[in-house]
Amino acid sequence: MIERLELDEHSATPLYRQVYDSIRLQILGGKLGYGQRLPPTRELAGQLGLNRTTVSAAYELLESHGLISGQVGRGSFVAWRGEPESVSEISFAASRPSELLFPLEEFRECCREVISGPEALSILQLGASTGYAPLRHYLLNEARLRGNATENDEVAVTSGCQQAMDLLARTLLVPGDVVLVEDPVYPGLRNVFAGAGARLIGVPVGETGVDLATLARHARQERPRLIVLTPNFQNPTGTTMPLATRRDVLRVAREAGATIVENDIYGPLRYEGDALPTLKSLDSDSTVVLLGSFSKIAFPGLRVGWLVATRTLIRKIAEAKQWCDLHTDQLSQAVLLRFAQSGRLADHREKMLAAGRERLRAAIEACERELPPGVRFTRPEGGMNLWVELGEGVDDGEMLARAQRSGVHYLPGRAFSAGRDHTGALRISFAGLSPELIARGMSILGGIFREELERVRHQAAREPQPALV
Amino acid sequence: MIERLELDEHSATPLYRQVYDSIRLQILGGKLGYGQRLPPTRELAGQLGLNRTTVSAAYELLESHGLISGQVGRGSFVAWRGEPESVSEISFAASRPSELLFPLEEFRECCREVISGPEALSILQLGASTGYAPLRHYLLNEARLRGNATENDEVAVTSGCQQAMDLLARTLLVPGDVVLVEDPVYPGLRNVFAGAGARLIGVPVGETGVDLATLARHARQERPRLIVLTPNFQNPTGTTMPLATRRDVLRVAREAGATIVENDIYGPLRYEGDALPTLKSLDSDSTVVLLGSFSKIAFPGLRVGWLVATRTLIRKIAEAKQWCDLHTDQLSQAVLLRFAQSGRLADHREKMLAAGRERLRAAIEACERELPPGVRFTRPEGGMNLWVELGEGVDDGEMLARAQRSGVHYLPGRAFSAGRDHTGALRISFAGLSPELIARGMSILGGIFREELERVRHQAAREPQPALV
Repeated sequence: MIERLELDEHSATPLYRQVYDSIRLQILGGKLGYGQRLPPTRELAGQLGLNRTTVSAAYELLESHGLISGQVGRGSFVAWRGEPESVSEISFAASRPSELLFPLEEFRECCREVISGPEALSILQLGASTGYAPLRHYLLNEARLRGNATENDEVAVTSGCQQAMDLLARTLLVPGDVVLVEDPVYPGLRNVFAGAGARLIGVPVGETGVDLATLARHARQERPRLIVLTPNFQNPTGTTMPLATRRDVLRVAREAGATIVENDIYGPLRYEGDALPTLKSLDSDSTVVLLGSFSKIAFPGLRVGWLVATRTLIRKIAEAKQWCDLHTDQLSQAVLLRFAQSGRLADHREKMLAAGRERLRAAIEACERELPPGVRFTRPEGGMNLWVELGEGVDDGEMLARAQRSGVHYLPGRAFSAGRDHTGALRISFAGLSPELIARGMSILGGIFREELERVRHQAAREPQPALV
Repeated sequence: MIERLELDEHSATPLYRQVYDSIRLQILGGKLGYGQRLPPTRELAGQLGLNRTTVSAAYELLESHGLISGQVGRGSFVAWRGEPESVSEISFAASRPSELLFPLEEFRECCREVISGPEALSILQLGASTGYAPLRHYLLNEARLRGNATENDEVAVTSGCQQAMDLLARTLLVPGDVVLVEDPVYPGLRNVFAGAGARLIGVPVGETGVDLATLARHARQERPRLIVLTPNFQNPTGTTMPLATRRDVLRVAREAGATIVENDIYGPLRYEGDALPTLKSLDSDSTVVLLGSFSKIAFPGLRVGWLVATRTLIRKIAEAKQWCDLHTDQLSQAVLLRFAQSGRLADHREKMLAAGRERLRAAIEACERELPPGVRFTRPEGGMNLWVELGEGVDDGEMLARAQRSGVHYLPGRAFSAGRDHTGALRISFAGLSPELIARGMSILGGIFREELERVRHQAAREPQPALV
């Protein structure tokens, strides 16, 4: 039997989505088992005081996710066979925009415009490995306007920023090459370069980004081929590199003969303070390759990113991409171009900045209010993540398990290791959650952390004192 | 000044497309130079007796290809700065469906249905590395119905078949591993495995596909990790492997402990004769990985392919794909699922089979009529390509240059080498051209080949006879 559904007609979440979410949680949580019959849409609509089409839309969504299946004339049944799991009600685990913020109507308009336009036929035929030409031209022009591309630079469109890194690894690295990365670091970045056979060396990240002295020492001693940096709102720490460090990092890379890969996918999401120039815009001699993406502002499921680099490197990237997948799907490229060129991207970015600012403030305030004294956390000015450090001695696995049992998810520090272990640290991805959920989730986490630090103190007090001999 | 445009209102090619094609050729051929002004749409429409919107659509298409650019109030100007080139009027060079056969209206309908449906939001969020679940389920079900998937098999969606090969190379190969490939072979296939550091060994392809005795010998002696085969309508030769050879190939692979990668992207395009079982359907012990794609039937620009393999291998593929590009764009996946599930794919395939049959027959008849005596060519029953062998002694470069000057393009045999040189051979890709263009193109090629063979004979006759000593 389906449990009573709690709906909030004042929520920004559409009602069909709320119905979907509630039933989904009952299925994943094991309250509705495999084969159980759902009430007919008409009946449930009547109970909830909703229009029948709303319930039908929720059922269709459940079906499209493989959670239920409908049989004509017999009704809908639970089709999910997995084990019941602790239901993730508040997840700080994913560094991605909330789908509730996606401008769905604008996406639909862009799609309609693209498919009725004269370019529809050409996007369906095979295209160029460097990307759909009109999008490539648009991105290059934008990069030039921002000082992010010189006359010698070109753009290649990639299937998200992940593929841009993969193509760089294939093009620039041979096994054994040294790559300097941030520590803690985004695992997708670490794994792609490690997978290419590079020797990764982690450079500690502090409150002001990567530690310059350690970076300079490794650059001198290890002769890295690549230095991969995220100067704006680094994932996972949310920290930003000051202008002076940016200039120093460029000098260090130049002296070491290394190429900098500048991951700027969070750059456009600055909620507070003044924007700083990219490394690419400060670069006078092709030391930097710049990575960008649409995925952090909207529509990550469309997988469109890009890189800006010298014409020579772009030619090599194009060749590598040809053997990877020929080229990126042109429908998503054309739709995102339309989204950008029509001004809808800029409008949507304003909304994302407003929502992000609210969420960032909610996260920082919740950290101040809920985290036990002595616990440190970063105070980003943009992006999607902040970093919490509880200190030594805590049991990360136990804390995470307790949080999950309480319905709160996050990723522990060790997931982001590039050598150091990050015990007692964790990433809070705040961008996908409403301020209310951020506050509620941090309150639960604060309680768990307090108990754990209490336990650590208690245990330290009970430990035998060293004998005085 | 624009030259007189020849239009054919009875052609299957829409008029706007004919106007586009004619002006495009004048630009690429140098007859309309950079900066030259095109007549206003109203004026040209009047001259040609066309609706002004038709001419506007052609201009928009030219603009979307970067050939012209429009300035409000000033008209349209040639924007293409390249060197005039020999205009490719008839190209046998690309193994792809003609975009004139793309079911554009059906594509638009599928798009509209997808974006207005309840799944629109979920396809815009990040998804699974193995692909959009509803498409994955559909493909697995189809594979099971055709005997191409066992209970232990799963499907992973890839960005075209090219990426499926790349993922297999990453997942299954270490540098130095031996991979047996067909010779001649599709270059994209050869390059991806060579790029992964494999040692490639080419197995000759004859009238009945790959040479079994050579394959068996290499399998025994070289212990290949992979054997990559295209049993149906192999690219470039168009040949098909008989049933008995299929069984033998499976035995050979099994005994050698090799995995077969079965590239079946041309399989659904059989125009004549009876379908043969895939290697995958004859396989009883997970020796075969099957590759499929939508790209040869429709919409290659959307880049959606897939592979069928054991659950264990699919899990490894998913992990590799996560570091490549996270996942394939979900919009194109959802649109193609809609295209397939609504029955439009099956309808369109019927049209492709009818057009393909006509084109294949036109190609074979033109070969019989136009090729000089003694020249051999394959007689495929499906697919997109056939293979012509002129024999030894001809000057491939000179012939190709002459063909291009006459406006006919093809790819010479050496492009498909996996070790052997294929002098005097060439690939004719017939699927992208109308029967009329096939006939005209082959007539031009026939003349060039005749002259070249004449020259070879003449030269042989003039060569000094060996002295009788």
